[in-house]
Amino acid sequence: MKRIFEVDPWKVISHELKPEDKRLQESMTSIGNEYMGMRGMFEEKYSGDTHKGIYLGGVWFPDKTVVGWWKNGYPHYFGKVINAVDFVSVDIKVNGESIDLAKDSYSDYEVSLDMKKGILTRSYVVDKNGAKVKVTSTRFVSIAFKELYANKLTFENLGSEPVTLEVDSVIDADVYNEDANYDEQFWNVLSKQVSAKDGRLVAQTIPNNFGTPQFTTEMAMHHVTDMEAKGLGKEEDKQVVNTFAKELAANEKVAFEKRVIVTTSRDYADEKDLDEATSKLLDSQAEKTFSELLTAHEEAWDKRWEKADVKIEGSDEAQQGIRFNLFQLFSTYYGDDARLNIGPKGFTGEKYGGATYWDTEAFAVPLYLALADKEVTHNLLEYRHNQLPGAYHNAQEQGLKGALYPMVTFNGIECHNEWEITFEEIHRNGTIAYAIYNYTRYTGDEEYVTHDGFDVLTGIARFWADRVHYSQRKGLYMIHGVTGPNEYENNVNNNWYTNMLAKWCLNYTNEIADKVSDEKLAELGLTEEERNKWHEIADNMYLPEDKELGIFVQHDTFLDKDLTPVADIPADQLPLNQNWSWDKILRSPYIKQGDVMQGIWYFIDKFPEDVKKRNFEFYEPLTVHESSLSPSVHAIIAADLHKEDKAVEMYSRTARLDLDNYNNDTNDGLHITSMTGSWLAIVQGFAGMRVIDDELQFSPFVPKDWEGYNFRINFRDRLLEVTVNKEGSSIKLLKGDDLTIKLNGESLTLTTEK
Amino acid sequence: MKRIFEVDPWKVISHELKPEDKRLQESMTSIGNEYMGMRGMFEEKYSGDTHKGIYLGGVWFPDKTVVGWWKNGYPHYFGKVINAVDFVSVDIKVNGESIDLAKDSYSDYEVSLDMKKGILTRSYVVDKNGAKVKVTSTRFVSIAFKELYANKLTFENLGSEPVTLEVDSVIDADVYNEDANYDEQFWNVLSKQVSAKDGRLVAQTIPNNFGTPQFTTEMAMHHVTDMEAKGLGKEEDKQVVNTFAKELAANEKVAFEKRVIVTTSRDYADEKDLDEATSKLLDSQAEKTFSELLTAHEEAWDKRWEKADVKIEGSDEAQQGIRFNLFQLFSTYYGDDARLNIGPKGFTGEKYGGATYWDTEAFAVPLYLALADKEVTHNLLEYRHNQLPGAYHNAQEQGLKGALYPMVTFNGIECHNEWEITFEEIHRNGTIAYAIYNYTRYTGDEEYVTHDGFDVLTGIARFWADRVHYSQRKGLYMIHGVTGPNEYENNVNNNWYTNMLAKWCLNYTNEIADKVSDEKLAELGLTEEERNKWHEIADNMYLPEDKELGIFVQHDTFLDKDLTPVADIPADQLPLNQNWSWDKILRSPYIKQGDVMQGIWYFIDKFPEDVKKRNFEFYEPLTVHESSLSPSVHAIIAADLHKEDKAVEMYSRTARLDLDNYNNDTNDGLHITSMTGSWLAIVQGFAGMRVIDDELQFSPFVPKDWEGYNFRINFRDRLLEVTVNKEGSSIKLLKGDDLTIKLNGESLTLTTEK
Repeated sequence: MKRIFEVDPWKVISHELKPEDKRLQESMTSIGNEYMGMRGMFEEKYSGDTHKGIYLGGVWFPDKTVVGWWKNGYPHYFGKVINAVDFVSVDIKVNGESIDLAKDSYSDYEVSLDMKKGILTRSYVVDKNGAKVKVTSTRFVSIAFKELYANKLTFENLGSEPVTLEVDSVIDADVYNEDANYDEQFWNVLSKQVSAKDGRLVAQTIPNNFGTPQFTTEMAMHHVTDMEAKGLGKEEDKQVVNTFAKELAANEKVAFEKRVIVTTSRDYADEKDLDEATSKLLDSQAEKTFSELLTAHEEAWDKRWEKADVKIEGSDEAQQGIRFNLFQLFSTYYGDDARLNIGPKGFTGEKYGGATYWDTEAFAVPLYLALADKEVTHNLLEYRHNQLPGAYHNAQEQGLKGALYPMVTFNGIECHNEWEITFEEIHRNGTIAYAIYNYTRYTGDEEYVTHDGFDVLTGIARFWADRVHYSQRKGLYMIHGVTGPNEYENNVNNNWYTNMLAKWCLNYTNEIADKVSDEKLAELGLTEEERNKWHEIADNMYLPEDKELGIFVQHDTFLDKDLTPVADIPADQLPLNQNWSWDKILRSPYIKQGDVMQGIWYFIDKFPEDVKKRNFEFYEPLTVHESSLSPSVHAIIAADLHKEDKAVEMYSRTARLDLDNYNNDTNDGLHITSMTGSWLAIVQGFAGMRVIDDELQFSPFVPKDWEGYNFRINFRDRLLEVTVNKEGSSIKLLKGDDLTIKLNGESLTLTTEK
Repeated sequence: MKRIFEVDPWKVISHELKPEDKRLQESMTSIGNEYMGMRGMFEEKYSGDTHKGIYLGGVWFPDKTVVGWWKNGYPHYFGKVINAVDFVSVDIKVNGESIDLAKDSYSDYEVSLDMKKGILTRSYVVDKNGAKVKVTSTRFVSIAFKELYANKLTFENLGSEPVTLEVDSVIDADVYNEDANYDEQFWNVLSKQVSAKDGRLVAQTIPNNFGTPQFTTEMAMHHVTDMEAKGLGKEEDKQVVNTFAKELAANEKVAFEKRVIVTTSRDYADEKDLDEATSKLLDSQAEKTFSELLTAHEEAWDKRWEKADVKIEGSDEAQQGIRFNLFQLFSTYYGDDARLNIGPKGFTGEKYGGATYWDTEAFAVPLYLALADKEVTHNLLEYRHNQLPGAYHNAQEQGLKGALYPMVTFNGIECHNEWEITFEEIHRNGTIAYAIYNYTRYTGDEEYVTHDGFDVLTGIARFWADRVHYSQRKGLYMIHGVTGPNEYENNVNNNWYTNMLAKWCLNYTNEIADKVSDEKLAELGLTEEERNKWHEIADNMYLPEDKELGIFVQHDTFLDKDLTPVADIPADQLPLNQNWSWDKILRSPYIKQGDVMQGIWYFIDKFPEDVKKRNFEFYEPLTVHESSLSPSVHAIIAADLHKEDKAVEMYSRTARLDLDNYNNDTNDGLHITSMTGSWLAIVQGFAGMRVIDDELQFSPFVPKDWEGYNFRINFRDRLLEVTVNKEGSSIKLLKGDDLTIKLNGESLTLTTEK
C-alpha cells in the first residue's frame, strides 16, 4: 500500500512531487472522454522518470506475436493500444531555460484532479536562477465536445525583475510505446502545416501484414494568448512547433491557451475529409472562451453525477474511493460509440494492450445498466454483435464450430497467445451471453435478445455444442481442457463454472429461440434438430458436485489437492504470484479469483442459501484474491449470506485499489475494469440490490464503521435514490412512473414527490 | 517421404544435386567425431540455398529467453549450439572466376558418404566458359586425432587449353546462427596470424549476462599442395586467407590439402596455452601424409564397426538404414569426453539448441551399453553427476527440494521455457535414475551406483518426496500437474508412468542405500527418518488403474475422453500436429509417443504377459507416433507379445526416418537421438534381447521380408555375435570368458572358438 494523495471527497490532490512516485501520480491523475484520454504527465519538460501516454479510443496496431514456442492456433498478432501523436507537450522557458521540475527548485506544488468537474489542475512556483514564476495549468478533454483538448497555462512573475517567458507548443509524432514487441515506432507523418499561431500534423500508423486497418489522425492546435507569436512556426522532422514569447514585468501575469482538435480516420474517410472536419471543428470552438468551453464540459459531468453519485457518510476514504472509481470508469467509457469498449487500463497506460476483455460483460455491464441510460449498455452489447464474424473466425482457428469470443481483442479476432488462456479460458463465451441476459432482465426489453442478441447467442450455443464431448464411461457430456476464472489452475476438466454456464447458454438460447421470428431462425439456419441436440446436451451435462461436502466441485480433481487454507500460508509468501513458482501455484488449491463463486454470483437468486453458504465457506478460505476482480464478488455473496464483516473486509480490498496502490503496479496505469468492484460491493452487496422477476429488490445494511450511504439507480426510465443509514433505509423515486419494489422482503410502491 | 540417395549397404550416395534438396543433402552427409562436426555443405562457394553449419562439441551460448508471457520459474536463457568459426570454406577460381554450382554448368556429380570409413567425398566436372575442370573433394574429421579436420581437393584440367586455378582458403569468424533469438553474431575475433601458407585465428564468444563461461577457440590452417602460395596471406576484418594458384596444362592435375587444427578453451586454460597446444598439434600432423592420417581414422572406424555392426540380409534398405543410424550416432558421441552429451541434432543442425535431453538416458544408453565399452555409458552417467548442482538449482527455482534434471541443458541448468514442459515433464528425472539402474543391470558393476550414482539417486528421490502431495480424500500420495512422455496432453494428474517411476525411484534409492558406505550416507545427510518417509510414500503412491479394462490408466481422467481410435481419423488430418489446433490435440485421446508403454518397456520383464497385452492393445490404437522416439518402443513390446507384423510395421517407421525424410524436416538436421530406435527394435525387439538376473537372454524371430540378420553385442567383457535367419538362431562368443545365456528360454553356455 502506498498513498500519495490526500483524502478528499471530490478531489485527488497532492502537495508533493516525489520523483520515485511520478508515474504513480501520472496514472492517478489521468483524464479521458471515451474518445481520447491521457495520463497526468506534465505539459512542460520533465527529465526524470515519466511515462508520457496519450491514447485515442479505438486506434491500435497489430504487433506481430512474440512467443517462445509456437502452438497451432495462436493468433498472428497482439493488438496494442498505441501512444498517440503527442499534442500535449509545451516547453516553457524562463529567461531562455526550460522549466524542468526534475532539476529546478520549486515550491507551493499542487496537483489536483477535480472529479466533479473532470479537470486536472496543477500549480507551483519555480525558481530559475533567481527568477520566480508561478505556473498554473488547467486541462481537460471535453465530454461536451469530444474532439477538443484544452489546456490553459498561466505564468506570473513573482520576482522583482522582469522575466522573459517563451513557450514552444508542439504536435509531435516522434513517440514510442513502452509496450511494443519490436521497439518500433507506430506513426508515419503524412503532412504538416504551420503558421504563426497554429499548427497541424497528419500521421498514419505504419503498414501491417495482417489486413487490419491503418489509422490516420489529424491534430490541429490553436493558441489563444496575449503572448507574442515568434516567427511563422516551425516544421521539424516529425513535429510542428508554435513559439510564443513575452517579457513579464514584476507581478505581471499572462495566460496561454493551447486548444487541440483531434480527428481520426475512424470517423472520416480520407485525408481530405479529415482536414475539412478538423477545420470545421476548429471554427466551432474559435469564438468560445476557455471558460465557456469548460462550463459545457462541467455541466455534462454534472449530469453524469446526478445519475450515478454514491455518497458515503462516516468514511472520507471510502467516499473518495468510490467517486474515483466511477470518475475513471466514465472517463474511459460512457457508451457514445458502439465501436469502443473498456480497456483494462483505459487511457491510463499501455499494459494489456488496451483491448477488450470479458471484464466488460462480467463486471462493467451491471454498473452501466444502473448508472447510465440503457443505450450505453446496448452499445456494449452491439460491440460484440459487430464482432461476431471475428468470433466465428476464432472458433474456426481452433477447428470448432460456432463463435468463440476472444480473450483479448480490438476487432473480434483473438489477440492473446497463451494456450491455457487463449484456447482454454472459454468461459468468457458464457459471460458474453450472460450480459445479454443481464441487460434483458434489468431493462425488461426483449428487443435486443430476440434480434441481434440472438445472433450472438446462437453462435455461442453452436460453439458449446461442438466443444463438449460425450464420455461413454460416464454417459454424460463433458468439457475438457479449460481454464476457469481461477487462472491459478490451467487445463482442467469439467470446471463447474464453465460447464454450468455452457449448459445455461444452451438452455437460454433455446428459450429465446421460442420468441424470435421464423425469419430470424431461417436466417440463422437453426433447425429443430439442432435445438434438440442443444436440449440433449444441456440435459446431460456433467456438473461436478460433492455430495458429502454438499458443494459444487471446481473441477474434476480439485478435491484431491492438499486443501490447506490461505490462512496457513506464511505471510511472507503472499502474494503467491510474486513469491511462488508457476508450478507451485498451479498445483496448489489457491484460487486467484472466485470460480464457483463467479457462477453463484451470476445466478445468486437461483441457489438456496445453504448451498451458497457451504460453497462460500469451502472456497473463500482457499481464495487469495490476487485478481482485482475477485473481492467484489465475494463481498456481494458474503453480504447475501449476512456475513457482514466478511463483506466489508472484501469491500475494503477493492475500494481504494489504485488510490492506495495496493498491488504496487498502479504506476503502469489504473485498474479500470476492476473499478466497478467497489460499486458492485456497495449496491449489490451492502444494499442487496437484485432484479428478480422484473422487480427491483433491496436488503441493505450499513458497514459498522460507516454512518450511512446513499446512491442513485437508473431502472426502466426511473431514477431512484437509495439512502441507508443506522436508522434504516429509504428509497426515493426521483423521476419516472410509480414503481413497486421490495425492501427487505416487503413490497413498497414508490411515487415521485410532487 | 523423399528419398534423394541411392540404396547402398555402406554408402549414402547420390549423383544428383537438386537446389531444392541442397539442405537435405547437407544434413544427410554430415560428419563428426564427437569433438566437432559439420553438415555436408560445400567447401567452395554456393550461392543457392544452403546451410553452412560447423559445430564444436560443448561450445554454446546462453541466448536470452524469448517468451510471450513470463511465468515465475522460467529460465533466463536458452542454451544454443553455435555455429563455429568457419574453417571449411575454400573459394576455388577457374580463370579468375569462382566455382558456384548454383550457377555453373557441371556434369558427373557425385556425393558419397562412406559410413565404413567415415569419409565424405564429392566430385564433378565444372564447365567455366569452356574450361572443363574435374574437382574432387575428400574430407573427414579424424576420430583418431580429434582436433584434426582434413580436406583434400584435386583439380584436373580436362580441357585442351591451360587453365589458371586459384584457391582462397579461409578461416572466417563472420558467421551467424540460423537459430539466434536476436540475430546476434556469437564470435568476437581476438587475434589473427597469417603467413604465406598458414593462418590462425583466435575467437571468443561474446560476453553474456548469465555467468556462463565464454569460450575461446583457435583455428589453425596448414596447406599441403604443389600449388604456389600467392603473397603472404591476408587478414580481413574477421578472417584470415591463404591464396594459392597454379596454371594447369591440359590433362594436368594438382592436389590441394587443407588441414585445420581446432582447439578450444574447454581443454586449455588461456590463449597462451591454446596457442602452444595448437602449435604442438600442428607439428604432430606435419610429417604425415593425407593417406597416413586417413588410415588412422579408418582403422578407428573399423574398430567401432567390429563391435557394433548389424548385418541384414534380404533388405538393402534396412541394411543402409541401420548403418546410417549407427554411423551418425557414433559421429555425434562415442564417450570420449564426459562433459559432452548427445544433442538431438548432433553436429547436423541448430534446432533444439543442440543440448542434452532425456532421450540420451532413455534411448541412447541401452545402445551404447551394448555397442561400446562400458566407459562410454559411464561417461554419460558422469555427465549427469557433474551437473547435479544444476539439478538442485532447478528444483529450487520451482520451490522444491532435491534435484530436478533439466529438460534441455548444456550445464545442468534448465534452458527450456514452456511451463507445461519445463515445470511438468518431470518424468525425465525418473529416466536419469533408470539409466543408472540400466547400467548397473547390464554391466553388473555396482561401483557407480553406490558412489557417484547414489548422489544422483538421492537428489532425485528427495525431489519426488517433495513433489508428491498427500490427498486426504484418497489417503494416498499423488503427483499433480505433470506432462508425461505423451506431450499431446499437458498438466495432467497422476500420470501412471510418472507416478510409477517416482515410486520406483524411491524404492530403488532405498535399496541402494543399504549398499553404500556409512560415509556416503553421512556425506549426503541421509537419515533413517528420511528413508522411512521414502518408504511410506512409495508404499502409498497412487497408481491409476482400471480394474474393468485391466489396464494402467494414463492419468486420472484419460478414460473420460472420446476414445475413438487413430484408424478412424481421416487420413488428410494426419499428422495431427500439422493439421489440428493445439486445443484439439490436447483434448483428444491421441498419444504422441508411448506413455504407459514407455513404462512397460522400462520394466518389460516385470509385467505379466496379459497385463502387457491388454495395455498394448488399448493404447497402441490411440497412438499417432508423431514423435520419432515412439515406434521403436512399440516394436519392442509388440515383438515381446509375439505380434510380429506389428513389430515390423513399427520398425519400418523408425529405420529410415532421415534417409527417406519421413517427417519432412531432415533439411534442418538429422534426428540423432531417434536413431537408436531401429537398433533397439532389432535387438530388443526382433531378437528379444534382455538382461534378467545377470543373464543375457534372446528370443529371436526374422521379419517376413528379410532373410536374416546378424549383430554384435558387447556384454561384460565379452563380444558376442548373434545370427538369426530362417533356419534359426545362433550365438557366437567372439571374445572373452565362457558365458551362460538363454536362447528361447533354454540355457546355453558359450565358449570362444579356439
